[in-house]
Amino acid sequence: MRYRLFIRLLLLCASLALGVHASAQTDPLPSWNNGAAKKAIMDFVQATTTQGSPGFVPPTERIATFDQDGTLWVEHPIYSQVMYCLDRVPALVKAKPELAKVEPFKTVMSGNRQAIAKLPLKDLEKILAATLTGMSVDQFNAEVKKWLAEAKDPRWKRPYTELTYLPMQEVLKYLRANGYKTYIVTGGGQDFVRVYAEATYGVPPEQVVGTAGGTKYAYDKYGKPFLTKEPKLLLNDDRAGKPQGIHLMIGRRPYASFGNSDGDRQMLEYTKAGDGTRLAMIVLHDDEKREYAYGPARGLPATKVGAFTQPLYDEAKKDGWIMISMKNDWKRIFAFEP
Amino acid sequence: MRYRLFIRLLLLCASLALGVHASAQTDPLPSWNNGAAKKAIMDFVQATTTQGSPGFVPPTERIATFDQDGTLWVEHPIYSQVMYCLDRVPALVKAKPELAKVEPFKTVMSGNRQAIAKLPLKDLEKILAATLTGMSVDQFNAEVKKWLAEAKDPRWKRPYTELTYLPMQEVLKYLRANGYKTYIVTGGGQDFVRVYAEATYGVPPEQVVGTAGGTKYAYDKYGKPFLTKEPKLLLNDDRAGKPQGIHLMIGRRPYASFGNSDGDRQMLEYTKAGDGTRLAMIVLHDDEKREYAYGPARGLPATKVGAFTQPLYDEAKKDGWIMISMKNDWKRIFAFEP
Repeated sequence: MRYRLFIRLLLLCASLALGVHASAQTDPLPSWNNGAAKKAIMDFVQATTTQGSPGFVPPTERIATFDQDGTLWVEHPIYSQVMYCLDRVPALVKAKPELAKVEPFKTVMSGNRQAIAKLPLKDLEKILAATLTGMSVDQFNAEVKKWLAEAKDPRWKRPYTELTYLPMQEVLKYLRANGYKTYIVTGGGQDFVRVYAEATYGVPPEQVVGTAGGTKYAYDKYGKPFLTKEPKLLLNDDRAGKPQGIHLMIGRRPYASFGNSDGDRQMLEYTKAGDGTRLAMIVLHDDEKREYAYGPARGLPATKVGAFTQPLYDEAKKDGWIMISMKNDWKRIFAFEP
Repeated sequence: MRYRLFIRLLLLCASLALGVHASAQTDPLPSWNNGAAKKAIMDFVQATTTQGSPGFVPPTERIATFDQDGTLWVEHPIYSQVMYCLDRVPALVKAKPELAKVEPFKTVMSGNRQAIAKLPLKDLEKILAATLTGMSVDQFNAEVKKWLAEAKDPRWKRPYTELTYLPMQEVLKYLRANGYKTYIVTGGGQDFVRVYAEATYGVPPEQVVGTAGGTKYAYDKYGKPFLTKEPKLLLNDDRAGKPQGIHLMIGRRPYASFGNSDGDRQMLEYTKAGDGTRLAMIVLHDDEKREYAYGPARGLPATKVGAFTQPLYDEAKKDGWIMISMKNDWKRIFAFEP
C-alpha cells in the first residue's frame, strides 16, 4: 500500500514537472461553438504537438501569427490608431500654431466629421507622420498609454483595449499552452501596438511585428542617449509586407496564421505554402447585431476599412483556408458581454 | 513515517514543478576564474532575479544582448562571414562568367591573398552584395549551411561554429536559466547568423538581430510564394544601428549587454542608461597564446577588425562597464581544448 502511494506520488510529480494538469481535459475554446472552425484549430494543435504524429512540429519552431485589426479586435468603422492620430492633432497644433491654417490639420481642427472622413489618403498620411514621428520613443509610449487609458470606442463606450474578441484570446492562450510563440503581425504601427499588446493579449513587445519607421540615436544635455522616431518608413507591414516583416523580425515561416482582409492574404498563403501541417484562418465579419457586418457578408468587394475582395475569397476557398463566422462560430464575442 | 514520506514527496513535487534542481548550487560559470568579471555577472543575476531585491526585474522584461564577432566567437584575423563571401565568388563567376574580368571579382579569383586583403571597402561591399543577395531566402540558407559544414578556420582547423568561447556559452545558459531571453545583436548579416545561431548558441532565429536587407515577395511557376534577398539595406546593425535595431526588433531596453569593440559602444551605453540594475561588459582580446591579442592589449587604437579606440575605453571606465580579460578571467576558452 505504501509502495502504491509512492508510485502515485511519483506520477503526480512527473505530471507536475511536465506541466500536465488535470484541467487539460477542459475545453480550451469555451467561447466557440462546435463547428468546422473550432475543429480545425483543435485538430491543428493535436497534429502539430503529438509526438510521433506525421505533422509534429518541434517546440522551438512553433510560430503562430495574428493580424490585429479586425482579427483580434474591432476595426470598424475606423482603426483605433487613426483615432489616436486625429485625437493628437489639437496638441500638435497647440505646439505649432502655424498648422491651424494648413490642411489637413485645419479640417481636423474644425471637428467636421464628414469632412474628416472624406480626407484623401495623402492627407491622412500627413496626419500620421505628424503625430507618430518626431518625438522620443519614451515620449511616444507615454502619450499612447495616456490616450488608451482615456479614449473610448463610441459604440460600446469602453476603452479600445476591451474590444478584443474573447474567442481569439482563447486561441492565443490555447496555442501558447501548447508551446506556440504567438506573434501579432499588423499593418498598424509596431510601436503603437507594442504599448498595449502585452497587457491586452499576453504578447510581449518583441513579438509584435508591425509597420515600422526608423529611429535616430542622440544624446540629451546630460549625455544620456535616447531614440527619436523618424518619418522614414522601414517596413510597410501590409500585404506582401507581412511575409517580408515575418522574415525580417522572426526569420521562420509560421505554422498558423489568422487574418481577416486583403492585407493578410500574402501572410496566409506564405504560411500555407510551408511543408507539413499548416493552418490559415479568416475572420468573417458577418454579425451585424453583436459586432458589424461588412466584407463578404455585405457582398464583395468590401468596405474601405479591412478590404476583403473577390481574389482573397477565391484563394481562400481554393487553398483550404478556414473561414470563421463571427455569427455562427462564436458563442460570445467580448469578455464584457454575457 | 508514512506522513513524512508524503511531505517529502510533496516537496519534491513542488521543487520539480518550480524547476528548482539540486544542481542549482553548482557553479554556473565553471570556465571563469574568480574575479571582478565573474562576480559582476553573478551579482547582476542575483540582484535582478531575487524577488524583493531593489533591482528585481520581472521575468518578461529580462532581455540580454550579445554582440557576436569577438564577443561570442573568434573574429580575428577576418570575420567568418567575409570568408563565406570570398568563398562564394567562384560559384558566382561560374554562373556569370563575365564577372571573371571585372574587379573586384578578378582579384578574388586570382587567389592572391595579399591583393585580396588590400581590397578597398567599396570593393568588399560589391562582393558582399553579390554573394548575399539576389537568391531566394531558402537557397541562401542552404548555401550557408553547406559552407558551415565544410569550411574550417585556418588556425584551429575546425568549423567556425566550434570557435565559440566556452565562458560566454556559460553566460548565455546562466542568463537563460534565470529567465533572460538572450539575443545576438550583430553587425554581421542577420540571415547569415540565423542559420547557425540556434544550434551553436541556443539562440533561435527570432532572437538574432543583425544587419538586414529587404526582401521581395514573388511566386514561382507553380504559384508558390517565395522571398528573394534584395540589395536594399534596411538596418545597418552596427554602432548607433545597434540600439536602433534593438528598438526595431525587440522594443525593450536590455538589462545586460556584452560587446568587444567600438561597434558595440552605443548598445552598451543604451543598456547602462536604463533604470535599475544594468550590466555592460567588454571582452578584451589579450590572450595571444590561447586566442589573439589586439585592441587595447596592443595599445590603442586597435587593428581594423574589431576596432577598439580610446573613446570606448574612456567611456567604459567612466560609466562602470566591466572588462573581461580573456587571459585572466577565462580558465578555458574553447570547449575543444582542455
